[in-house]
Amino acid sequence: MRTNKNPFSRSAASEPGRLADIYRAAAQIICEKGYDATSMNEIAEAVGITKAGLYHHISGKRNLLFQIMNFGLDALEEEVIQPARAIADAESRLRAIITGHAQLITSRSTSQGTNPVTVVVDEVAGLTPAQRRKINQRKRAYVDLIRDTLQQLQEENKLSEVDVTAAAFSLLGMILWLSRWYSPAGRLTPEEVSEEVTKIALGGLLRIPLRRTRP
Amino acid sequence: MRTNKNPFSRSAASEPGRLADIYRAAAQIICEKGYDATSMNEIAEAVGITKAGLYHHISGKRNLLFQIMNFGLDALEEEVIQPARAIADAESRLRAIITGHAQLITSRSTSQGTNPVTVVVDEVAGLTPAQRRKINQRKRAYVDLIRDTLQQLQEENKLSEVDVTAAAFSLLGMILWLSRWYSPAGRLTPEEVSEEVTKIALGGLLRIPLRRTRP
Repeated sequence: MRTNKNPFSRSAASEPGRLADIYRAAAQIICEKGYDATSMNEIAEAVGITKAGLYHHISGKRNLLFQIMNFGLDALEEEVIQPARAIADAESRLRAIITGHAQLITSRSTSQGTNPVTVVVDEVAGLTPAQRRKINQRKRAYVDLIRDTLQQLQEENKLSEVDVTAAAFSLLGMILWLSRWYSPAGRLTPEEVSEEVTKIALGGLLRIPLRRTRP
Repeated sequence: MRTNKNPFSRSAASEPGRLADIYRAAAQIICEKGYDATSMNEIAEAVGITKAGLYHHISGKRNLLFQIMNFGLDALEEEVIQPARAIADAESRLRAIITGHAQLITSRSTSQGTNPVTVVVDEVAGLTPAQRRKINQRKRAYVDLIRDTLQQLQEENKLSEVDVTAAAFSLLGMILWLSRWYSPAGRLTPEEVSEEVTKIALGGLLRIPLRRTRP
């Protein structure tokens, strides 16, 4: 249904955040229907713009998956990885990573109990080999940050007797799984659930379990 | 490429486990290419049977995703849920669930670092609403088993101060994430990595961290 034939009449009002809206809406439809079954029309409709307006913002469906993944990984980079790298103390850094990443996911979860962008970041089927390499490289840098932090804790004799690699991925699994179950319509706020996950993870990984709660 | 026009000449040799082979091969291709991009021809080729032979075993692609999920959930039911339900002691039951489920996933992981069947169990996009309800019901029964076990530990004053729901899903995330990273080509055996995950999870959840290692 074309309500507007001029591609510039709406897309010209290209507010900041428009691309973010598009990526979030597209990710939600992809989660519901799968990438191949998702049409540009549906995405345009969900965002409330014309198909022509949508093409003004993104080049086409072919790269959409890759763009959504980079959008999700950019947020991780800015809100979790960069702040964490600035923390010298390994224990504080680990805590910042867990709480920060958990909050990043839960603060943008839908009431259906998913964070579609985070879910789509792991849907690597459908990427070209070159795109897959780039996404895997970005993910690997994050895993390395977690692993290096655990390694540092081990050298400081603060890590419980666990394998560093298994610990890094267990941690990541706990955090990323939030994107598939946490709903803000439930009992816990994003802050509360992030604090719970942090407690559980640190309890499992640190030699002296830290069971502090926020004031 | 039809190498054999008689659908019965090969499929008649319907060994037990043939269906399992088909589901595993199909899951692997789905993980690599996505469900919609996966053809029955490719699955037949991967299993080493003709397309006609494949149709002898499964009714068509339409139900394939649903069948793979039930195949994965059947294994979970038989190898983890039923044995766990027979254990009265909550702490032993929790340990059995974590170790059992971790072993179920890791013992069938590919050298690419995935367990395709486990990954596909969470690809609910592409299911009909009725199929999705059935799968979600089976998953919910498992979450309830974990949650009830944690609740029992809480009543026995053995659970650390964590929210039972957040703890149940954190546990599940740790375990299920194994399907996306664990490779038997790596340093740890399935038994070792299952033991690591059990240690990390119990360390985070139990009031008195159990750091026993296997003899």
